[in-house]
Order: sequence, then structure tokens, then C-alpha cells
Amino acid sequence: MNITRPTLLLDEQRCRANIRRMVEKARRNSVTLRPHFKTHQSHEVGRWFREEGVTSCTVSSVRMAAYFAEDGWNDITVAFPLNYLEHEEINRLAGKIQLNVLAVNAEALKGLLEKLTNAVGVFVEIDSGYHRTGVDPSDQATLDEILAVIESSPLLDFKGLLSHAGHSYSCRSAIEILTIHQQTTQVMKRVGTRIRARYPDLVLSVGDTPTCSIANDFSGIQEIRPGNFVFYDIMQRGIGSCSDDNIAIALACPVVATYPSRGEIIVHGGGVHLAKDVLKQEDGSPVYGKVVRLTNEGWSIPATSMTVKSLSQEHGIIRASAEDCASLKPGDVLGVLPVHSCMTADVMTEYYTLSGKRITMMPKA
Amino acid sequence: MNITRPTLLLDEQRCRANIRRMVEKARRNSVTLRPHFKTHQSHEVGRWFREEGVTSCTVSSVRMAAYFAEDGWNDITVAFPLNYLEHEEINRLAGKIQLNVLAVNAEALKGLLEKLTNAVGVFVEIDSGYHRTGVDPSDQATLDEILAVIESSPLLDFKGLLSHAGHSYSCRSAIEILTIHQQTTQVMKRVGTRIRARYPDLVLSVGDTPTCSIANDFSGIQEIRPGNFVFYDIMQRGIGSCSDDNIAIALACPVVATYPSRGEIIVHGGGVHLAKDVLKQEDGSPVYGKVVRLTNEGWSIPATSMTVKSLSQEHGIIRASAEDCASLKPGDVLGVLPVHSCMTADVMTEYYTLSGKRITMMPKA
Repeated sequence: MNITRPTLLLDEQRCRANIRRMVEKARRNSVTLRPHFKTHQSHEVGRWFREEGVTSCTVSSVRMAAYFAEDGWNDITVAFPLNYLEHEEINRLAGKIQLNVLAVNAEALKGLLEKLTNAVGVFVEIDSGYHRTGVDPSDQATLDEILAVIESSPLLDFKGLLSHAGHSYSCRSAIEILTIHQQTTQVMKRVGTRIRARYPDLVLSVGDTPTCSIANDFSGIQEIRPGNFVFYDIMQRGIGSCSDDNIAIALACPVVATYPSRGEIIVHGGGVHLAKDVLKQEDGSPVYGKVVRLTNEGWSIPATSMTVKSLSQEHGIIRASAEDCASLKPGDVLGVLPVHSCMTADVMTEYYTLSGKRITMMPKA
Repeated sequence: MNITRPTLLLDEQRCRANIRRMVEKARRNSVTLRPHFKTHQSHEVGRWFREEGVTSCTVSSVRMAAYFAEDGWNDITVAFPLNYLEHEEINRLAGKIQLNVLAVNAEALKGLLEKLTNAVGVFVEIDSGYHRTGVDPSDQATLDEILAVIESSPLLDFKGLLSHAGHSYSCRSAIEILTIHQQTTQVMKRVGTRIRARYPDLVLSVGDTPTCSIANDFSGIQEIRPGNFVFYDIMQRGIGSCSDDNIAIALACPVVATYPSRGEIIVHGGGVHLAKDVLKQEDGSPVYGKVVRLTNEGWSIPATSMTVKSLSQEHGIIRASAEDCASLKPGDVLGVLPVHSCMTADVMTEYYTLSGKRITMMPKA
């Protein structure tokens, strides 16, 4: 494959292995895998899930639901707090597929009801500890208020309780991840128990990549929704969700200059290609990506460490030893493992497999 | 205009005023304005420059040069270190327009020469103090080496010396900005003087938004290349380049939840809409955008301060007083002034003017 400019490489074999591993874990645990597709945003990668028997998915916007509905997905949860201003698109989609929305308060549901013409499923988000959105698990009044709105209309079909333990992203060990997993599932089961008599088919849905990658006990849970695991990234590697060998995307970046005296290599590959999520090294210095050497079979981790230390709009600045600087020249191409693959994929809007096949993504606008 | 999801609003009047102000400053100072189009990446906004008499532009990639060449721009500098792997596209463009490339070393130019079939202009980048790329001003040997490569081929036409004082972005006052401007122009004039006997038509090209917004003395300089000033943003406001009233874009974000007890409002508007550039408040807490109230005429700064404190992929979390929380409900729409308008525009890929006209941008792929 002839790389001439920043290009997002996708190792299909690793990606399919990541998918298969999670599908098997879900099967072993008798939970439904409803993977989050916001990471890859791609019909093609969605089909790889379908080939493993996955029949439902999660998305982060109504637009993204429409994109996947186009490709035959007919059971989609929009795991983002309901924005009832989008009622036209919601009605259109709900007329075609099983569309589930996410309620975090009664107001938005009431706003939707004024315009709703087709039936939608409703999950209620429970804040299991991340404190971003969702109903406080001790706030039975708000939960009852939301359930009352759902009961008030035959167009609203209560599906269950949903939680996203996003605070697992601050973990740095399996034991920390498992602690959050246990807390989350306990909270969900506790709230579920309070209402299961009224809703015997209640689904408890949890799932983020760290806990779903590490945990092996999902008893009492009916559905998991991890997303990032399809590609993983060096943030997940740092959290402990995966190894370097599981990371399935790398940004190929042409070298344009080397500065051995400064220990820096400049590549074409900036904030508009990698996005600007950042990790801190032990000494506090920022890391925007980890450099790999491209090979005929994909990429390999070099013995010496090279990391992206800063990003301009199109420039990537790599910290490297004098030896690494001397081994590279303008016209060479390096790979960069992203900090956060969801954001890198989002800005790149397309992938190339290692055999050079182009894989498109949802258009940005 | 009916806003239902995250939408990038462009105040055409403010934007045209920003353009006019810079055009007039360039005229007053008898320097050529070759504005950087990486900020807006839009044919339409480019035409607003053309209407003010601008005839040349700067871009940050060969792809972007091709995009603007399509719309009739025929004098374009790619102000990013030459990546000779793109020789096919460079040859294609150089056959149609005056295309200038940027040399930071001799190697890349030599690589290009092996494949070059059409004449290109060459600027040599001088590192005037930012230390990202460019030839050290005291390193006459490297400059001579690059000039020798240029002299070796009739297809390479030396245009001049170019510098980007990106370290002006760390300034927080006019006096700091003017100091960097003075240092940069002095460095450029000193290097220029050493070679002007050989190249009497030498162009000295400088320019970044802070120095071009604040400075009023460009004597000895022939060309300026600011870009961000077309929209400005709250980073430029913090640097001192502009006032809030000059900022010409705002991301409209539907409110989906309010949490008065936490002092937080959740909007649809996340990292995939704003991008993740960040400023620090005095107490060290991060700011990803400044909240404005949308009005019939555009937007206005509220008396009380609301700022974006964190971003997930699609969620924006706004810190707000209990009073502001109480004044808002799901279905309302807030505006967010971006930290870095170049990056926000890049991820949104389209604008809507206040009258609802859609303005497209360069496709991402």
C-alpha cells in the first residue's frame, strides 16, 4: 500500500479477534452484547459484528442511529440523553426499526410525547457512580416520575435501566476495574429489584470497555454495551483493558523533518488527524500517541520508546533518541497508536486495511 | 433557524469585519496578506477574502491546496514542511497554479526533485524562536545547502523566507506579543540581509494571529499569513488578540439535562463537535468553551459565567450557577464559543450563517 499522507490503518485481523473475544464472553455469560458503534462509525466494521451473530447495537446520536439503520440494523439504542428537538428523525426511524431512547429526566420525555407518532423503547439511565448523567440510584421519586410518563403513553415502551461506568477510565489496574464493575452491577441490581415486580422483563444494561474487558462475572445483568474494545488504544492499554497487541488501528504519518540535537522528529499527523486526547507520563509530560514501525504485516513496537509529545493542527512532534532520529529521514513513514481511538477515527472519517481496502465511515455532516 | 442538534453558527458580519480589518492593516503597511485558510477550510469564506481584494492564500496541506485551487485560487503556499511523497498531487497542482512549497531541509527537496515535472515556488522556513520546524537562523550552512538544491533545478523557484512565531500563543498581553513580533521580524531581516544581494526579490513572510492582530509595524516585511483571525476564539481573547465581540463562530448545543445541585448542565456538544483544546482557569480547572445565550441577532455573553468543564465524545458538561441551571431546561439551546476555532471548524465540517445558509467545508476524506 502506497502511503503518501496521514492514513488511518486498520488491522482487520486484530479487530475481528477483538470482536470475537467479546462475543464469546457475552455468550459464556448469557448476556446480550449490544456493542457501542460510536468507536468505529462504519457500516463495514458493523458487518464484522453481524458475522459473529450480533443483532443489536448502541450509538451516541440519532444521526448515527440513522446511519446504521441504513445498513440493516433494526434494533438500536441511542445511549445519549434524549434530545426531543430531534423528534422528526426519531419518528422517522421509529417507524422503521426498534429504536430505543435514553431518559435521564421526565421533562425531555414529555417534550418528545407532544410530537411522538411511532413507538419507541425507553431505557432509563441510572448514575452508578460516574456522575455525568442519569438518575441518582437513591432518587426513587425521579425514577417513578419518569416511569409515570412512560406509563402514560402506549408509544413509550419501558425497556430497562442503563448505566455507563465511565469512571472506570481512571483505573490503572484490574483490581480497580473489578471494584467499579462490582459497585455498578450492585447499584443496578438494587434499583432493578425495586421495580422488577412491576417490570418482569426489565433489562439491566451496563458496559464500558475496561469492565467488559476484565470482568468475568455478569450475573444478574442482561446486556453489555462496550465500544472501544473493537480497536482499543494506548489509554485502554494504560488502564489495563488490553495489551499493545490488541490495538487494531494506527495512524500512518510521513516524516518531514528530524532534529537529532533536540531529540525530535516531525511528522505529518496533527490534531486534525489524531485528535487531542492526552495521557501523562510519570514525569508529567504529555503523550498524544505511541510510535510504532510499519512492517509488511502491519506494525511493530520498537525496542526504543518514541512518543508524540505535542500536536499542532497538522504537525506531530515526536520525542525520540538521537539514534532513532538518525535512523529516520524525510519520506519515511511511521505509525502512531492513538491515545483514544474513538476520537482519532472520528476525525479521520475513513480507514485503510493492511491490504489497502478503503473502509468508509459515517459522513461528518 | 431551527436548531435540533449541534450546529456550528457563523456570524458572517463579524467574520467579514475581521477580514476587512486585516486587509486594511496589510494595505496600510504595504505588505501582502496571504491569509491562512486552514482555519475556515471553506470556498465560501475564501470568496469573502477575494471580495476584499485578496489574491493569494496559505494552506496547511497539499489536499487543502487542491481544494482551494478548485475554486479559482491560483497562488497558494503550502506552509507545512514539504512531504515529497505527495509528488503526484504536487505535480498536478503545479501544472495549474502557482504552488509554493516549504523547505525545512535539503533532503525533502532532493526527494521531490527526483519526481518533479512542473515548476514550484519554494519558501525556506526559518525558526524564529518557536522551535517546531525550520532552519536555525544561525545555521547558514543548512540554508546554503537548501539554496544550492533550489539553484540546481530550473523547476525550483526560490521565493523567500518564511517564519511562524507560534510561541506568540503563550502570550497573555500586547507587550509580550509585540516583543515576539519584534524578535521574529529582526531574525527574518537579519537572515534576509545575508542573502538579499543574491535574491533581490526575496519575500520575508511572517504571521500568526496574535502578532498580526496587535502589531502595527511591519517595516522590512513583505508578506503576512495570519489565519485564525477570520473567526478568533476564546484562546485568542485570552492572548489579547481580540475581544469577545470579534469571535465569529459559536457551537449551538441543545440542553439535555440540568443538575442544579451539582451546578452542571449537560448539552449535546462533545469532543467530536468542539474538539478538545483546553484553557486553564486561574484555579487550574479546565475550560473547553465559554457559554453564550443565543439571540435573534446571533448570541450574547451572559452576565453570569458559564463554561464547559469537560467533554465526552458527545456530551458537554457546563459549570453553571444554581440560578443558571434553574433558568434552563431540556430542549433549550445554548451557544459555546470555542477555545480553538480552527479545530472546532475542522471537526464540524460545515457552518450555518445566522440567516440559516449552509456553508460547506473541505471534505475530510
